[in-house]
Amino acid sequence: MVQLDATTQEVLNRISEEFAQKGAYNLRQNGVALCHGDSEHIKIRKKEDKPGIDILIDGDTKGERVFIPVVVSVSGMTDLVYNDFYVADGADVTIVAGCGIHNSGCNESRHDGIHTFHVGENANVKYEEKHYGEGNGTGSRVLNPVTNIEVGRNSVFTMDTAQIKGVDSTVRETNVELAEGAKLYVLEKLMTDGEQKAESNIEVCLEGSGSSAQIVSRSVCKGHSLQTFHPKAVGRNKCHAHIQCDSIIMDQAHVGSIPEIQAEHVDAAIIHEAAIGRINDEQLLKLRTLGMTEAEAENVIIENFLS
Amino acid sequence: MVQLDATTQEVLNRISEEFAQKGAYNLRQNGVALCHGDSEHIKIRKKEDKPGIDILIDGDTKGERVFIPVVVSVSGMTDLVYNDFYVADGADVTIVAGCGIHNSGCNESRHDGIHTFHVGENANVKYEEKHYGEGNGTGSRVLNPVTNIEVGRNSVFTMDTAQIKGVDSTVRETNVELAEGAKLYVLEKLMTDGEQKAESNIEVCLEGSGSSAQIVSRSVCKGHSLQTFHPKAVGRNKCHAHIQCDSIIMDQAHVGSIPEIQAEHVDAAIIHEAAIGRINDEQLLKLRTLGMTEAEAENVIIENFLS
Repeated sequence: MVQLDATTQEVLNRISEEFAQKGAYNLRQNGVALCHGDSEHIKIRKKEDKPGIDILIDGDTKGERVFIPVVVSVSGMTDLVYNDFYVADGADVTIVAGCGIHNSGCNESRHDGIHTFHVGENANVKYEEKHYGEGNGTGSRVLNPVTNIEVGRNSVFTMDTAQIKGVDSTVRETNVELAEGAKLYVLEKLMTDGEQKAESNIEVCLEGSGSSAQIVSRSVCKGHSLQTFHPKAVGRNKCHAHIQCDSIIMDQAHVGSIPEIQAEHVDAAIIHEAAIGRINDEQLLKLRTLGMTEAEAENVIIENFLS
Repeated sequence: MVQLDATTQEVLNRISEEFAQKGAYNLRQNGVALCHGDSEHIKIRKKEDKPGIDILIDGDTKGERVFIPVVVSVSGMTDLVYNDFYVADGADVTIVAGCGIHNSGCNESRHDGIHTFHVGENANVKYEEKHYGEGNGTGSRVLNPVTNIEVGRNSVFTMDTAQIKGVDSTVRETNVELAEGAKLYVLEKLMTDGEQKAESNIEVCLEGSGSSAQIVSRSVCKGHSLQTFHPKAVGRNKCHAHIQCDSIIMDQAHVGSIPEIQAEHVDAAIIHEAAIGRINDEQLLKLRTLGMTEAEAENVIIENFLS
């Protein structure tokens, strides 16, 4: 067991609370793999040509969880990493990623994680990702994840991503290709405050017959923060897609939503819904009559909205 | 009364069937004003510096209709026109515009109408616009309307626009600014077929407190045609906006919808809904069991959808 320093452990508790040095795991800290382990069905290999790892998940993997958290705790670092996931036919796996930045200095700390998923047929992949920033330095905390996902025939890919706190700037790029009968579920949760900026671009190409995608994005935008969403669904075959973006706007924040739906096949059915509005006044009133302060009531509503 | 040729009369019947040479009207044919008339409250003045007219609508106008149709019946012409509408405080008026192109030659016939509306306070403006193409020539029929609308305090602007048939290429640009308490209603209907292309960009800025916008776009996309919608609502004050785009896709057509909603104020409430899908199978089946052919049943459903 590698001994972790207090800052790293604290950040881990925020992004990956179940993390332990057992089973298949890889902990990256300040640009290097601090510790890693394999399991019977999941092997992790360091890349030879560039920073990052290959995660090989065999077809007999059933319900296993693999943890690959990243912690950046020095100020002024840019950490770029390429992680490739090879999921064999029939595998059933949960991948817990996530990145936390502790920046107590005056320089920008940044992590750019480029994750590529090659998912075979009849597989079931759940991908959980939490992004978090902390530290009282003036240096900004920047996270620019790129996620490329190829989902094979009749496989299911579920992506559950959350950025709740402390990230000053993020540009998220997610690209998905769905083969015949493949299903995608995305749940994105985002909260920004202060002068933070967040941009999320998701492009889903429904290439295969019978493929489907459901994207739900929920965000809360406080302070002077700025959010832009650009989800895009392209239907190239008989398929279903449903995109839903809901945002709560507060204070002097700005929220933009630019969904794009493209139907290139007569049997492509694509629906989009987006709503931006202030916090529900009736809910607020109800909670305040129960004795909560306005701030407490707002927090309850926001937590509920993002849960 | 100016005598109209048969082609012009036929095109007029399609775009402006109520048109008659009385009251306030201006008929533009192949780049020149063929005839025009004023009424007590509505005056039409030819521009001195560029092609087009100024339409001056005084505040005592109550329920009057003004007709300003355009017919292009020669092949190979590009007709560019600037029409400016000055609507005084308190006026209540219906403006019937529209453009029809008859192209029996082998060259492109094109009309670019740039319409600018200056609407005062407490006014009520209804703007109807039909676009239509015909003629068995190989030359294409192109319509690129630009519509700029400033809606004054507590005024209501209703825009009812339809392009049902025969326009090979169109790029529609509509820009609207709403002052305090101003209301906008847009209903857009569009059908394309064959190799036709249509693009519609609508930007509404809700600048004033209490302003509201409702945009409904309905389209049918047949053959190998291509449609792109880009409606945008920007809320800069306490306001409501609702955008709804529904498209029926048929054959090998492609439909894209890229709505954009931007909230820049905590009391801006903006909703968007878009759906692209094939013709309703149940409705089709029901009509066919009533004895209709598939084509007849489709036509009934499409007409109903666009009405």
